[in-house]
Parts: sequence; C-alpha cells; structure tokens
Amino acid sequence: MKKPQGRRKRRKGIGSVPGTLTYTGTRPEQKFYIEVIDYSRDHCSHKVYNDVKEVFEYAGSESVSWINVNGLHNVEAIEALGTFYKWHPLVLEDIVDTYQRPKIDEFDDYLFVVFKMIYYEEERPVIEHLSLIMGKNYVVTFQESHTDVFDDLRKRILENKGRVRGEKADYLLFVLLDAVVDHYFLVIETLGDKIEDLEDAVFEESHDDISKDILRLKKEMLRLKRAVFPAREIVSRIEKSDSDYILPHIKNYYRDLYDHTIQVVEYIEVYREMILSLMEMYMGTISNKMNNVMKVLTVIATIFIPLTFIAGIYGMNFDYMPELHGKYSYFILLGTMLLIFIGMLLYFKKKKWL
Amino acid sequence: MKKPQGRRKRRKGIGSVPGTLTYTGTRPEQKFYIEVIDYSRDHCSHKVYNDVKEVFEYAGSESVSWINVNGLHNVEAIEALGTFYKWHPLVLEDIVDTYQRPKIDEFDDYLFVVFKMIYYEEERPVIEHLSLIMGKNYVVTFQESHTDVFDDLRKRILENKGRVRGEKADYLLFVLLDAVVDHYFLVIETLGDKIEDLEDAVFEESHDDISKDILRLKKEMLRLKRAVFPAREIVSRIEKSDSDYILPHIKNYYRDLYDHTIQVVEYIEVYREMILSLMEMYMGTISNKMNNVMKVLTVIATIFIPLTFIAGIYGMNFDYMPELHGKYSYFILLGTMLLIFIGMLLYFKKKKWL
Amino acid sequence: MKKPQGRRKRRKGIGSVPGTLTYTGTRPEQKFYIEVIDYSRDHCSHKVYNDVKEVFEYAGSESVSWINVNGLHNVEAIEALGTFYKWHPLVLEDIVDTYQRPKIDEFDDYLFVVFKMIYYEEERPVIEHLSLIMGKNYVVTFQESHTDVFDDLRKRILENKGRVRGEKADYLLFVLLDAVVDHYFLVIETLGDKIEDLEDAVFEESHDDISKDILRLKKEMLRLKRAVFPAREIVSRIEKSDSDYILPHIKNYYRDLYDHTIQVVEYIEVYREMILSLMEMYMGTISNKMNNVMKVLTVIATIFIPLTFIAGIYGMNFDYMPELHGKYSYFILLGTMLLIFIGMLLYFKKKKWL
Amino acid sequence: MKKPQGRRKRRKGIGSVPGTLTYTGTRPEQKFYIEVIDYSRDHCSHKVYNDVKEVFEYAGSESVSWINVNGLHNVEAIEALGTFYKWHPLVLEDIVDTYQRPKIDEFDDYLFVVFKMIYYEEERPVIEHLSLIMGKNYVVTFQESHTDVFDDLRKRILENKGRVRGEKADYLLFVLLDAVVDHYFLVIETLGDKIEDLEDAVFEESHDDISKDILRLKKEMLRLKRAVFPAREIVSRIEKSDSDYILPHIKNYYRDLYDHTIQVVEYIEVYREMILSLMEMYMGTISNKMNNVMKVLTVIATIFIPLTFIAGIYGMNFDYMPELHGKYSYFILLGTMLLIFIGMLLYFKKKKWL
Amino acid sequence: MKKPQGRRKRRKGIGSVPGTLTYTGTRPEQKFYIEVIDYSRDHCSHKVYNDVKEVFEYAGSESVSWINVNGLHNVEAIEALGTFYKWHPLVLEDIVDTYQRPKIDEFDDYLFVVFKMIYYEEERPVIEHLSLIMGKNYVVTFQESHTDVFDDLRKRILENKGRVRGEKADYLLFVLLDAVVDHYFLVIETLGDKIEDLEDAVFEESHDDISKDILRLKKEMLRLKRAVFPAREIVSRIEKSDSDYILPHIKNYYRDLYDHTIQVVEYIEVYREMILSLMEMYMGTISNKMNNVMKVLTVIATIFIPLTFIAGIYGMNFDYMPELHGKYSYFILLGTMLLIFIGMLLYFKKKKWL
Repeated sequence: MKKPQGRRKRRKGIGSVPGTLTYTGTRPEQKFYIEVIDYSRDHCSHKVYNDVKEVFEYAGSESVSWINVNGLHNVEAIEALGTFYKWHPLVLEDIVDTYQRPKIDEFDDYLFVVFKMIYYEEERPVIEHLSLIMGKNYVVTFQESHTDVFDDLRKRILENKGRVRGEKADYLLFVLLDAVVDHYFLVIETLGDKIEDLEDAVFEESHDDISKDILRLKKEMLRLKRAVFPAREIVSRIEKSDSDYILPHIKNYYRDLYDHTIQVVEYIEVYREMILSLMEMYMGTISNKMNNVMKVLTVIATIFIPLTFIAGIYGMNFDYMPELHGKYSYFILLGTMLLIFIGMLLYFKKKKWL
Repeated sequence: MKKPQGRRKRRKGIGSVPGTLTYTGTRPEQKFYIEVIDYSRDHCSHKVYNDVKEVFEYAGSESVSWINVNGLHNVEAIEALGTFYKWHPLVLEDIVDTYQRPKIDEFDDYLFVVFKMIYYEEERPVIEHLSLIMGKNYVVTFQESHTDVFDDLRKRILENKGRVRGEKADYLLFVLLDAVVDHYFLVIETLGDKIEDLEDAVFEESHDDISKDILRLKKEMLRLKRAVFPAREIVSRIEKSDSDYILPHIKNYYRDLYDHTIQVVEYIEVYREMILSLMEMYMGTISNKMNNVMKVLTVIATIFIPLTFIAGIYGMNFDYMPELHGKYSYFILLGTMLLIFIGMLLYFKKKKWL
Repeated sequence: MKKPQGRRKRRKGIGSVPGTLTYTGTRPEQKFYIEVIDYSRDHCSHKVYNDVKEVFEYAGSESVSWINVNGLHNVEAIEALGTFYKWHPLVLEDIVDTYQRPKIDEFDDYLFVVFKMIYYEEERPVIEHLSLIMGKNYVVTFQESHTDVFDDLRKRILENKGRVRGEKADYLLFVLLDAVVDHYFLVIETLGDKIEDLEDAVFEESHDDISKDILRLKKEMLRLKRAVFPAREIVSRIEKSDSDYILPHIKNYYRDLYDHTIQVVEYIEVYREMILSLMEMYMGTISNKMNNVMKVLTVIATIFIPLTFIAGIYGMNFDYMPELHGKYSYFILLGTMLLIFIGMLLYFKKKKWL
Repeated sequence: MKKPQGRRKRRKGIGSVPGTLTYTGTRPEQKFYIEVIDYSRDHCSHKVYNDVKEVFEYAGSESVSWINVNGLHNVEAIEALGTFYKWHPLVLEDIVDTYQRPKIDEFDDYLFVVFKMIYYEEERPVIEHLSLIMGKNYVVTFQESHTDVFDDLRKRILENKGRVRGEKADYLLFVLLDAVVDHYFLVIETLGDKIEDLEDAVFEESHDDISKDILRLKKEMLRLKRAVFPAREIVSRIEKSDSDYILPHIKNYYRDLYDHTIQVVEYIEVYREMILSLMEMYMGTISNKMNNVMKVLTVIATIFIPLTFIAGIYGMNFDYMPELHGKYSYFILLGTMLLIFIGMLLYFKKKKWL
Repeated sequence: MKKPQGRRKRRKGIGSVPGTLTYTGTRPEQKFYIEVIDYSRDHCSHKVYNDVKEVFEYAGSESVSWINVNGLHNVEAIEALGTFYKWHPLVLEDIVDTYQRPKIDEFDDYLFVVFKMIYYEEERPVIEHLSLIMGKNYVVTFQESHTDVFDDLRKRILENKGRVRGEKADYLLFVLLDAVVDHYFLVIETLGDKIEDLEDAVFEESHDDISKDILRLKKEMLRLKRAVFPAREIVSRIEKSDSDYILPHIKNYYRDLYDHTIQVVEYIEVYREMILSLMEMYMGTISNKMNNVMKVLTVIATIFIPLTFIAGIYGMNFDYMPELHGKYSYFILLGTMLLIFIGMLLYFKKKKWL
C-alpha cells in the first residue's frame, strides 16, 4: 500500500505565534481570485477580482454581497481583508489553517463558521476547508480551490430563482451551508454504494484484497465522520442563537438544515455498523472456505489411505501368504476395495461433506 | 446478491431551491385520491375525492375532519392544499420528501409530524413515509399509497366505537400515531421470529448461506431502527408540549403511547444484541465443525500411516530379511497390526475424538 | 432447539380501541380470587373473596387495606374494580396487558406502578406481570397467578412483625416492592451460578452444546435486564415524588430500595460482561483444541511419511540396486529408520508438541 | 476450577423485615472489640474495649473521638450503639450487610458512608465492608476484621504527626477515606503487574492456561471496579455537600481525594481495555501457532508424498517396465528424487515457510 | 518482552500525611535551577538562579514574571517558594507528585493547573509532569527536566515577537499551554505514522511480531489518552471561569486552544478505532494465510494419494493379476495416471486453488 499523497504532512506553524497566518493546505498552485455577487431584490451583479482592495467598495451598502475568496495560500490578501473588516486575528488564522475542525464563533458584529466541503474526485473523497463569515449585508466565503459545490446556487441567484434575492445575509448563509450539506448526501450515497459492492465481494468466490479494501473504506468513513459530525452542533447553534444575525422567519430553514445534518450523522453511524459487520462476515467466509478445503482433504485422505494400506499388505514379500495364491483373490480384493470406496462415499454424502 | 430494488436511488432535488417540492419516493404509479372522514359526536361522513379543491369546504367547521391524502407524487395538489391552509413551504417539502427522517415541528396554529409506517410485504419490511398535520378541528395525513394500517381505526370511527367521535383533533392524532406504533409491534414480532429461525439454523448441521442471512437481517434491523427510534422523542415532545393543541386529559394517552415507543426501542436493542451474538455463535459452530473434520482426518491418518509404513517395510526387496521366511510371520504381523489398530482406537476413544 | 412455549405469541389487541382491556398473558386457567388483608395498629383481618363487589366495603375506612387480585384474565372484575375506584381506563389496560413494561404513573389521588416479579420455576426464570395501585389507605396488587413472593410479607403482617402494622399505605407499597426486589437477588444468584457452571464447562475437556447454552443464558439475561432495569427509575421517582402519597420519614426506605435496584443493575452489567467473555473464552478453547489435534496429525505424518518413503525406495524392482544384496543392509536400514524416528521425537519434544 | 470459597453464598435475610440487622459476611469467628482514639490538639488517648457501653462516655465531649468497631457479627452491640446515637435502623442494617454497595446518606446530624476496603491477601484481592458515621466530634468506623489499612494513620494521630490533632471530625473522616483510597492504588498496581505478566506469557512459546488466567483476571477486575467506582461519586457528594459537617477549608482536601478516586477509575478503565486486548492477542498467537504447525505438515507432506508416489511406480510388478533394467536407472532415479527434494526445499524457502 | 524501565514503580508516599511533599518522578539526577523571564511592554530580562530565595524579589512588581522551576526533586526549594507565595500545601504536593493527573484548581488569588507535556525521545513517547500557577503578574511553571517544548516561546518573548510582551499573565498562561498542546499534535502525528507503518506491515507477506507491536502501540495510545483527555476540560474551565484572572479579550484565545484540545481528542479516538481494526485485519490475514497453506497441502495430497494407491495396487504380489502381463499395460497405466493428474490440476484451477 503505497501512500502517494495520503501520508499526513507535518502540520506547519507549530511553535509559531498564536494569530500567525500559516497556510497548511496542499494546493498552493491554485489561482487566487475573488468572486463577488452583489444583489438585492431588484438588481444583481457578478464580478471577479484579483486584487483584494477592489472588494472593499461593497462594504456598507444595503445590497447583500457574497464575497467568495478562492485560494487560501494568498495569506496577505486574506490578512488585508481581515484588517479592513476588523475580524479577530484568530479568525484569520483559522481561515487558512486547513486542519482546523468545523466550528462556530459568535462575535459582536459577525459570525464565523468553519465547515468542510466534501466531494468525490477520482473515486476518493476530497475534504476541503471552507470558512464563512456573515456580517451585516455580507457573507464572505473562503475556499481552497474552485469547486462545483456552489454552482447551482450561483446560478439560482443570478437567474433570481428561489427566495435568495428577496432575503438578507442570514438566508444567504443558510443556502450556502445547505449546498454543502446537500453534497454530504452525495458523498454518503457513494460510500453506501461502495459498502454494497464490498458486501457482494465478500460473498463471491474469489476475494483477495477485501480486507485491505474494508480497512480503506473504514478510514475513509472515519475521515468523513470527523468532517461531518461537528456540522450538526454548528447548525443547531446558529438556529438557537439569540443574536440579531438571524431573523426569526429564517430560523425554520436552519431547523430544516439541522434535520439534514442529523440524517447525515445517522447514515454514517449505520455505515459504521455495516463496515464492522462486513469484516466479521469476511472472517466468517474465510473460515467457511477453510472448512471446505479441509473437507476435501479429509475425504480424499480418509478414502485412499486405508485402501493404500490394504494394497501395501499384499505387496509384502512374506513367503507364506495364502491369499496371494487363490485364482480370484485379486478380483475379490479389488471388489472389497470398491465396496469400501463406495461405503466411504455414502458416509461422507450422509455427513454432507460432498 | 442481486439488488433488484434495494440499491438506493440518487436522492433527487440536490442543488434545488430549498422549499421546492420534489417527490423522492418510488411509487409514482399510485392513484391519487383524498379521503375525508368528517365527524362529531352526532354525525359522521366518509367521502373520497379526486380534486383537492373539493376538500376545502371542510375547513372552518366545528366537526373534526380527518383528511387522508393518498399519493405523494401529485405535488401540485399538495401545494394547493398547503397554500389553502397556509402551511410553511418547508413543511410541504418534507411531506413529499420520502427521505425525510421522522420529526416534529410546532407552528403557531398547527403541528407537523413526520412518521414512518412499517409493515411486511412479501417477507420484507416496507418503510413508508407518513406526514401528519394537526390543526384546529382537522388532521391531514399524507401517505405514499393505500395501506391497511388505518383500516381498523377507520372502521372504529365509522361504527362509532371507542372515544374518537367524542373527542377533538388531538385525540384523532393520538389514535393515528397509536395505529402506526401498534404496527411496529407486528414488525418487531416478525423480526424476532426471523432471529429465532436463524438461531435454529445456526445450530443445525448443514448451513450454507447463514452469514448472508445474518447480514441481511442486520441491515433490515438497522433500517427499522432508523425509522422507529425518532418516534420516541416525537411522542414525548407532543406530550410535553405546552401549546393548546393537546388538551390536558388527552396527555395521558400520549404518555401511554410514549411507553409503547420505548418498548419498541427496547425490543430493537435486544434484537441488536441477539444478532451480534448470532454471528459469534455462527463463527463458533464453524470452528467446531472444522475441529470435527480435523479429528476425522487425524484419526484416519494416525491409524493408517504407521500401519502402511510397517507394510512398506516388509515389501522391501532386501535379500536377507529373516522375518519373511517364518511360516507364521505373516499372521503374526497381521495380528500385531490389529493390536496397533485396536490400541489406537481405544486411545482416540479415551481422548473423545470418536 | 424446540420452542414448546418460548415462541412469542401474537400480541393481542393490536388495532383495538385504546383503553380496551385485553388480557395478553398465558395463564387464563388460573382461579380468580381476591385476597384482602385489612389492618391498623390494633387489628388485622385476612379474607379471600371471589366476587369483586364484596371488596368495595373496605374503601373509605381508616385502616389500611392490601387488596391482592389474583388472575388477570377476569377483565370484567378488574374493570368493575377500576370503575368503583375511578381509575383511568389506560391504567386498567396496562394492568391486564402483560407485555406492558415496568412504569410509574402519578395521578391526583393514586399512584400506579407496573413491576415485574421474577422467580425460577423448573430451572427457567419466569417473569410475571405485577401492577400496584396505591391510594389513600389502600394498595391494590394485581398478579397473574399465586406466587410465593409475598408469602413472608403476608406472614409478617398477620403476626405483626416489623413496622408494617404501625405505618400507612406508603410503607405497605414499600414492603411490597421490597419483597419483589429481594427476589431479584435470588434470580441473579441463580444466574451467577449458571455462569460459573458454564465457565467450568468451557475449560473442561469435552463440551458439545456450550455455545447453545451460552446463547440461551444470554437471552435469559437480556430478558431479565429488560424486566429489571426500569425498576431503578421507578423507585427513584417514588422517592423524589413531591406528592403527599409518601410521608417524609418513609422516603429513607425508598432510598434504601433504590440502592438495592442499583445493585441488581450492577450485577446484571457484570454478568453481561462475563457472558461476553465466556463466548470469547470458548472460541479460544476451540482454537486451542484444534491446535492440539493438528499437532498430533503433524507429528504422526512428519515421522512416518518420510520413513514410508524410504521403505518405498527399497521396495522398487530395479535390477541393479546394490544395497539390497548386503547381508546386513536390512538391519542397517532398520537402525537408520529408528534413528530418524528418535531424532524426530526429540525434535517435537523440544518444540513442546508432545 | 474448583471454587473452595468463591461460590457466592445465598444472601441471607431475604424476606426479612426491612431494618432487621443480619450479618451477611464470612468472618463470624473474628474477635469483637472497640478501639477508641480520643484526641484534641493537646491530648490523645488510645483504649480498647470489649463492651459497647463503655464507649458511650465519649459522646458529647469537645475532643474528637475515633471509635473503631471491629467485627460486624456482633449485631447486638452495633444495635446498642445505634440506639444510643439515634441512628436510623436502615443505617444499622447497611453496616452489617456486607453486600451493601458503597453509598452515602446525609442525615440531619450525622453523615453515613459505606466504602469498600481492598487489599491483597495470598495473591487475591480481598474486598472488605467498611462503614463510617461522622457526627459532631466523632467518627465511628465499622470493619469486619482488623486490617492494616489504618495502621499508618493510627500512628500519625498518636505521634501527633500531620494536621489531624489540630482539626475536627471532618478532617478525620477525610484521612480515613484517604487511607482507604491510598490502598486502592496498591491494589491497582498489583493488578497492573499481573496484566503485564500475562502479556509476557501470551507471547511466550508454551502457554496452556492463559485463557483461564485472563478470565480470572477479568473477574477480579470487575469485582474491583464494582467496589471502587462508587467512591468517586461519594467523595464528590461530600465535597459538594452544603451541610455544616464539612468546614470550608477542609473541602480542598476532599477535592484532592476526589482527584485520586478519578485516577483509580481511569486506571481500571485502562486495565479493562488491556485485558480485552490480551484476549485478542492470545487468539492471534494461537492462530499464528496453528499456522506454523500447518506449515510443517504441509512442507513434509508436499515433499514426501510425490516422492513416495514415484517409489511406488517402480515397485509395481508389471512384466514389461523398461526403466527397471538399465544399469544406472536406480541411481538416475535417486538423483532425480534428490533434485525434486532440493527444488521443493528452495520453493518453501522462498515462500518463507521454512 | 523485557521491561528495562517500563515496570511501574511502587507509588511512593502511600500512608503518608496528606500535604506531604514526596517527589514520585524518575529523574532525581536532574540539575535544579530556576529560570526567570521578567518582562513588560518595554523591558525584558532573562536570568537563571540556583537559590530559590533570589526569586522572591520578582513578587509584587508590575512587570510580568515567568518563573520556570526545573527539577521537582528539590522539594525543599519548592516548599520555600510555596510558603513565600502562600500556596495551599495540597498544591505543593501535586506539583511534585508526577502521578497526579491533569487538573485545575481555582483559589482566591491564584490558579493552579496540572498538565502533561508529551514529546518523543528515542521512538517512545515521554510524558512529563508540568504544573503551572498563575497569580497576579506571574506564572510559575514546574518541570521535571529541561525540555525544548518552551524553546520557541522563550525566544519569542526575548525577541518581542507576537503579543506576549504587551499582555498580562493570563496571556502568558495561554501561550504556555498553547505550546504544550502544539506538541501534542507532533506526538499524534508520530502515532499516526506508526499506525500506518503497522498497516503496511499487516498486509505484507512475512510478519512475525505484529501482534506484539499492535499491543505496544495500543498501550502507548492509552497512556497518551490518559495524559491528554483532561486537557480539554481544563482549558474549557479556564475559558468559562468568571474570576478576574482572565481578561475578556483573552478568552477568545482560550476558546481557540479549547478547539485544539478537542481536535487532539478526536485524533486519538480515530487512532483508537484504527488500532482496533488493525488487530482484526491481522487476524484476517493470518486466517487467509492458513487458508493458502491448507490449499497447497490439499492439492498435493489430493493429487498424489490416489495415484500412490493405484501404484500400490500393481505392487501387490497376487499370483494371478492379468493386467501385469500385457506388453503395454505399464504405459497404459502411466498414461492413465497422467490423465488423472492433469484432470485434478484442471479441477483445482477451476476452483481457484492454484
């Protein structure tokens, strides 16, 4: 089992000053750009910038701005944005630290959420760090690279489908998180399919690498679990938050989202049990197969070893062995052997070994 | 293991606008109809409609209406009903989303409950999505297809048995949920019978597909668990609700129902442990059987291999082997072999291998 | 594994009106009678009635009455009693439903407790449904059949031993529950003895049905657990109840009883772990035994197969085999074979296979 | 596995009046005596009495008395003491009931604590019942027999070391419990040593009774766990108690003791996991050994069975077998066999079976 | 498995007076010295002392002092320090008791924290006892020996990097704990690498000592868990503390640290599951290998035992065996044997045993 890219890299930044921005991800080659969708009920603009300063103009307006920052390796730009919006240094540190687990922090005038986006790429789940900051009339999202998780949503805003354009930033945050959680279901379905495939493989005749596959699946599931489980509490805290961020009529949506996160968690628990059972089943099938191999050996040996012994008797060179000289002795012996052979076969048939 | 219908279908509606009504079930071929039982202490009517608008007339009357909507694929009708009764869009979304887990949502003037009906069809448990909305003087139920879960109840209302006709919508909701939970017990009994059958099979002589059966049973149980467990909390929340939906003297009934849901949960926990033990037992019987096979092989080989060796000795062609020439040598040897044979048998008898 | 009586019967009463009295037990052949012990500090009477109406006279007096109803199949009598005392219909339903799990319900002027009596009959634990209703100056108990669980207590009241005659109904309820919990300890001791017997059996030479016995014990324990565990919470709720049922100086007794229920629960948890270990141990002993069988086979085969090969060499019929013609060749070969034999034995001795 | 003394005895006193004093221990042969250490900052007396009445004189004085009652079988003396101090009858029952689990009961003017003393005697842990009653200016301890758990403490008081003589009864209770918990650590260390010994044994070549030893260790650990776990909550309740028993500046000591009880619990949890792993490891080593045995058998059989077959070919008595008559045929065959032999050896070497 | 240093030493100090300072560590040979870094926004001094009295001068100043005491064996010096600062005797006892588990104690004018530092030394994790006392304007740390855990931090303070010099003692405590927790991640990474190495080893061909390695890893992980888990609660209690120790704007940092401790805990939980799976996988691979060995044996035996029997037949010495005399009998037989041989090979090929 080679680990071309799985081996964890040494977490950078240990021993550094708390609040230091260190990008710990693996995609520094990404192009950095900022995408802004600014909308109100009546208008909607969609622009892409490369310089962070051009984004500052959106602050303070009455329209809602979704500022989507792509590329966490550009820590200077993120620091500049943080300084402009007066976010806490630890918030900025968490944005670029891809090892940060999902969390929520409430500040006086903004809400900071860390989530994990998950999607499948080349048969393997990719877990990507996503940070969201919701303030008055804006939501800023920070991604490592461009993903298609938000594509449907972007289209819906631009084409003014659904309620987004008529609501405020709290609803925008909801639809963003909703899009991420919707993708969790896709990942969970793929996981479920993989488990069913392995199930089939366990009960097939020839299996060689199943245990390795089961272990890999288990590790995959543990990684997903760690990424997905905190989502439940985060959404619950947004829903129960007594701050002014979230308008009362929006809370129903968060409650619905909370239901979805619970559903994800339940699926993962079920899959966990299924994988445990799979391993057990696999052990059972190995034992069963060994049993069958043993039976073949035992049947052959039990039939032929006594017969060989009898043949050995009459191969002895004693001077006086009366049986040897009868005219039909040989055929009588062959007949006896045949009877023994048939008797044995019937016995094993009865014992269901054949 | 073919999966004629088990393979999960791709959850529809991912990426769609929240609040969009998308039917995710598997029974679009069902006939859509609405059944209304309208009753008070003195009168009772039972009618079936195909057009949703004809149902609107029942709103606002003093008599209690049970409006049973059959067929979730007709999302337009459900949307029309929702618009008429002013239910929240997310409620409507959950009604037609058969993946929605059991839940309860309290609104100002109605209560929304999602439950799962379970019954056995062709030896396999069918889990069906059921939504209930209780408002003032009405309960609307939404089913995927006609089932016989409510047949007894329907008869009791029409024939004015029990207390239903004398009570309000809160009692109607109770008897509806009670009918569903009563069916849980039937399902659990079937599950228990299946486990006992498997137990018998484990200790029988010939078993081939037991591990596959155990795995299937385990998956069945996990599905039931996921459908049934949330019922406990939902009923508890209805009972503890401080709203005006539920009259105080009705709460005793919900407490009783709560007891029943706990009982269901306890049974499932017990069955879970039983299935775990089953697998262990199965592994034990395989090992035991292999042990017995090994013993047969060992007994045969241990008896005849040395005897064959002795016969081989006297089959050698050395010029000078004095034993060969005695008159009784052959018979002495045969006797010796017989003694060894009997000695071995006694030895294995003592070791309880025979 | 025949199930002469173990197979669960179809729970009666599914689909019936809530509050309908349906006896779900298995002892309809029992004689129905009501036993009344009426006592105060100064007097004590003990009578047996067959007609429920004769019992009504005890109501309202200042003396404490213990009304022990035997035989749950007489639902009319129980209904009559319930109507007289004005108990809730659901209470009556739970009294005759032997599937009802242990529970407590507090009403304004009475307390309803469901417990399970457990005792051993013919080596198997019998779980019997017991309902208790404590009101002002009375405790009514409902049993399926006459058991000796209350025999000691009955004697103590009649002979005026202990504090019962000087206390009120709250103390009577305590001594009744105390008698039941005391019997739990007897059952748990029997369970413990059975586990120790199985432990001995696991490490004995010949065991055939151990796994079946372990499974049966496990099922027994799961049944007991389900019957016994709720007792803990019930007693705790009586002790913490802020109603007037329970006088303050009696609460100490309930706290003591609570300790006992915890002890029972702890024992069952320990036994659960022991049974799990037993199964593991059993698997270990099977593997160990197979190992020993394998060693015997391997020793015999490894010693005699090479020797037989050598004998086979000199049994060949080549024209020119110089060794065959030496005068001592045969004896030299026999000696060589003996040396090989002894060498092998020493090797296996060193490897501790013998 | 004989059980000379391990078999649980029938718990006495079932069916008896609650509050009846029944000694359930196993040491009725102990000498009964009462040891009193009476001290204040300035004086200290140490006396031993056989009659309980002589102890009454210590009541009511300003000095602190530690009254250590040895021998629980003398229920009359304990009852007399209880009557004098006005303790609750249930308290007295728990003092002499050695099956009582650790607990704490707060009364208006005294505190009742049940603990378990544990020490090793002849390689096995002995669990002894200890009751403590702390009142104003006194602590009474009840032990089954004399143990050396309190020896250090006794010496410290008599020699006026540490703070005991300068503090009140609350500190005395603390040092008593502290002495007991200190001994838990000794027991846990012994348990840890035993586990390490078993670990070594598992990986040694020859092991026969390991599984029995593991099971015994597990049972030992379960017994310890049951005795030790409640200590945590008891100490916590003393520390959090808002009564006047415990002076504020003494609470720090109880908090420290609480830390120690948590440490004990943590160790036991770790040992529990270790024992579970041990069993698994043991199963692994058995499988590994069987694998090695199988390999020996397979190597021998795979090498010699084909060779014996070849020898058998040339032992046949056909009239016309040309190979038999060549002058070097025999040696050519021997050489061929040697080549096959060497080839096989190399093959198994490559497969790492040798 | 020799235990050169792993065997736990008898915990010293059992039976001693509570509050007695007993060093229980294993590094008495360390040099004792005290390092003081005294700083404010404007100045910073770094000195090393050997005499504890020279440190007293730092008390009471407005600048923040980090007093780092190295070497816990010098209990007199620690006692002198404790007396000077008026710390509770139990605090001093916990400082030198290396067995003390991580804890936090809040006193009126100081905060006492016990943590465990973990780092890898010669491939094995070393767990070192660390105590921290934060008072007004000072933090005193007590270590067993010099470690490099604080090296980065020391440098940052001296070079005035980060915010330390501008903040008070509460921030100093944070950066100290942060440095320790940062090292937890290093240890966890090493643990993760070890698990991956073992995973590779399990699926490799030849493995001998894997089960021993898995057990060692498991023990290592259990030790880490015990050292690391309490950190979570400790940091949470500091963050939620309502005392004046911690300024409000510093709490964000503690919340961030709390996130990190949760992350550590999550990693350990995941690794725990991975190690459990590893053992299972290992058992599976052993069974798989045994299966392969069995197949080789069975193939060889099944092919050659019947052939040897046939050869044995024609090696018999009957006077009248017609087949022996045909001219081509021998070759016909050889051909038949070859056919049987090939047939068998094809059969096993089909069964995928070859």
